[in-house]
Amino acid sequence: MISLDLIKEIAKASATKIVLLVIDGLGGLPNPETGKTELETAYTPNLDALAAKSICGLADPVGPGITPGSAPGHLALFGYEPTSFNIGRGVLEALGIDFDLEPEDIAARGNFCTVDKAGLVTDRRAGRISTEQNIKLCQLLNGLAIDEIKIIVRPLKEHRLVVIFRGEGLSADIDDSDPQRVGVAPKAITALAPEASRMASIASQFIAQVETILAEHHPANMVLLRGFSRHPWFPTMGEIYKLKPAAIASYPMYRGLAKVIGMEILKTGTTIEDEFQTLRQNYASHDFFFVHIKGTDTAGEDGNFDTKVALLEEVDKALPSVTALKPDVIVVTGDHSTPALLKTHSWHPLPVLLYSKWCRHDRVNEFSESACISGGLGRFPATGLMPLAMANALKLNKFGA
Amino acid sequence: MISLDLIKEIAKASATKIVLLVIDGLGGLPNPETGKTELETAYTPNLDALAAKSICGLADPVGPGITPGSAPGHLALFGYEPTSFNIGRGVLEALGIDFDLEPEDIAARGNFCTVDKAGLVTDRRAGRISTEQNIKLCQLLNGLAIDEIKIIVRPLKEHRLVVIFRGEGLSADIDDSDPQRVGVAPKAITALAPEASRMASIASQFIAQVETILAEHHPANMVLLRGFSRHPWFPTMGEIYKLKPAAIASYPMYRGLAKVIGMEILKTGTTIEDEFQTLRQNYASHDFFFVHIKGTDTAGEDGNFDTKVALLEEVDKALPSVTALKPDVIVVTGDHSTPALLKTHSWHPLPVLLYSKWCRHDRVNEFSESACISGGLGRFPATGLMPLAMANALKLNKFGA
Repeated sequence: MISLDLIKEIAKASATKIVLLVIDGLGGLPNPETGKTELETAYTPNLDALAAKSICGLADPVGPGITPGSAPGHLALFGYEPTSFNIGRGVLEALGIDFDLEPEDIAARGNFCTVDKAGLVTDRRAGRISTEQNIKLCQLLNGLAIDEIKIIVRPLKEHRLVVIFRGEGLSADIDDSDPQRVGVAPKAITALAPEASRMASIASQFIAQVETILAEHHPANMVLLRGFSRHPWFPTMGEIYKLKPAAIASYPMYRGLAKVIGMEILKTGTTIEDEFQTLRQNYASHDFFFVHIKGTDTAGEDGNFDTKVALLEEVDKALPSVTALKPDVIVVTGDHSTPALLKTHSWHPLPVLLYSKWCRHDRVNEFSESACISGGLGRFPATGLMPLAMANALKLNKFGA
Repeated sequence: MISLDLIKEIAKASATKIVLLVIDGLGGLPNPETGKTELETAYTPNLDALAAKSICGLADPVGPGITPGSAPGHLALFGYEPTSFNIGRGVLEALGIDFDLEPEDIAARGNFCTVDKAGLVTDRRAGRISTEQNIKLCQLLNGLAIDEIKIIVRPLKEHRLVVIFRGEGLSADIDDSDPQRVGVAPKAITALAPEASRMASIASQFIAQVETILAEHHPANMVLLRGFSRHPWFPTMGEIYKLKPAAIASYPMYRGLAKVIGMEILKTGTTIEDEFQTLRQNYASHDFFFVHIKGTDTAGEDGNFDTKVALLEEVDKALPSVTALKPDVIVVTGDHSTPALLKTHSWHPLPVLLYSKWCRHDRVNEFSESACISGGLGRFPATGLMPLAMANALKLNKFGA
């Protein structure tokens, strides 16, 4: 595996431009009636024409057989080995609501849950209370202060929340309170390192106060916390690749992820056309563009084969406004597969096309899972994509004499 | 990745023979007018016939997107992971002029440069002085002795030179004097480890003497040094593979590289036919032959598509004299791509064919970049080639019970 240190050593700034178009949940599975995946069903003449001029292949974000979450899926595309670069669950949830984490903040993912009179968990999701109810409960819990640590509580969807501990001398090195099963009491929060004992004590005191405040709010009469984590400090794409990168994403979590690795976040709208317009408007000011399309993943998760097909056709229709910019390198792929038949992320590798004047194109002339099998990139780890894009943009010096 | 330790454990000596034919800079890019690469344009019936009996694929010497220098490209072919086995610049230049390095020698790459009256570098290449002038200047500098250290100075091409420090108690752990830019003074040479302070002092004294000697030789009135390094001690191919390897190469640097990993250097001529004759004459005495063809890379670097095509046809024409020897394994590949369109080494993977009676050949019946995509070896790291060649020569025992 090529290390980021090596890439950093040979990367050079230049005027060439790279566009990375991430179609979330792109990969699919064939509809049993037609034998064709979502991408194979969609009418995509522009993607097919681009594939004919490109080098294609199939990428594994984490490894063969491993289903990636959104964070590992994206980190791999940006060249960060996802098994080494980890973003804690608490931080990811905070990024997902555009919450502005400070460097020392500790974030935890929470669940409202139900406990019985003996204090044993009877429902880890408090009967999946409504988001409206969640918002009201979070207002009760928000703004507590324990030992000069301010505690910020923000609602997510249904029974989910995020808790941020803000102040000096905190540590993420504490265990979850969530026992991950019912019939037992929430776990006492313990320090995993000596310097985390204060943090463990503060989190425990917070949970004790929550218990009192929520006592009369059955079924949401308790909170379980997990994934205590701090904003990670990864080397930025600017440091590694000497790029000036920008992110165009309508969903907050992807903007948050991009911010973690130093991309500038461009303000954009909610449609594919909005995002492509943002790309056009900002094309002069950056040399790397991460454009994220969310709808395809949502359609896959909902098991909505036809909606995913329609969205892929919408991307294809809008594509000429991207190719018209004549980027030196265009990469089209996804962060993971989300086959409508599985209604969830999956382990299947991703179709990839990489266009450049220097790509040494292969014989693939259709952008699809089955055509990409015989592409010149072969089947490869997705972390190899950024070095390839950089090379094709002539932004990498030779390695060794 | 399979470690050399593992290979060493399972390698066994046997009577079978392996020929590794390295066509330097083999890989190319399609001519925009024909859509065909140099190799695809060349008429190569013998290589095609051999490909039909072989297993084929595309190899990455360092990794996808990484353009290899000659040393990393070759080390990968010999099974040495090029990001772990590093040859310093100074040593590589010394190998390149067939200079016989002693184990304790420290070699540095040098540039004649121009400094102004304030001592600031104004031209890092002294206006690219002629090689003839370089030779004269090196004679002025050669043979100095400082504190019982003998300093040998040898000219390379144009403004380039190599400086060898010979004596006891030296160290390569010192920083460059080359600032890599103009408008600043050469860097003071500093020790990077306490035991290197004497070496730093000797190199600094040498540079001070050079300054005095060259004072009146504007534009070549100073020397910049970089890449201080000592002859590396890698495990030899004999130790790892239990082979008796020989190198046939008309260019000194490749002979030097081969010597570093313990190959015997066979005296040869300058043409492809000379090299193949050397192979035939020495076929009985060794069991592994590295045959290096240089011209294809030079043609690529010069942007000379047609010359590269002609040289590939020359290799093809001479090939029957190699196959007639009936080697148990024949591998044909390159150390990196040098597309005439790019006029430089590139990151594109290398076409590979591996012939043996036991290779389980695929359906590829043409030796070309595009045909090798669908070969049975797939796209793979070039370090995997030696284990494959060894296996096909039945020189590797089973791993594990």
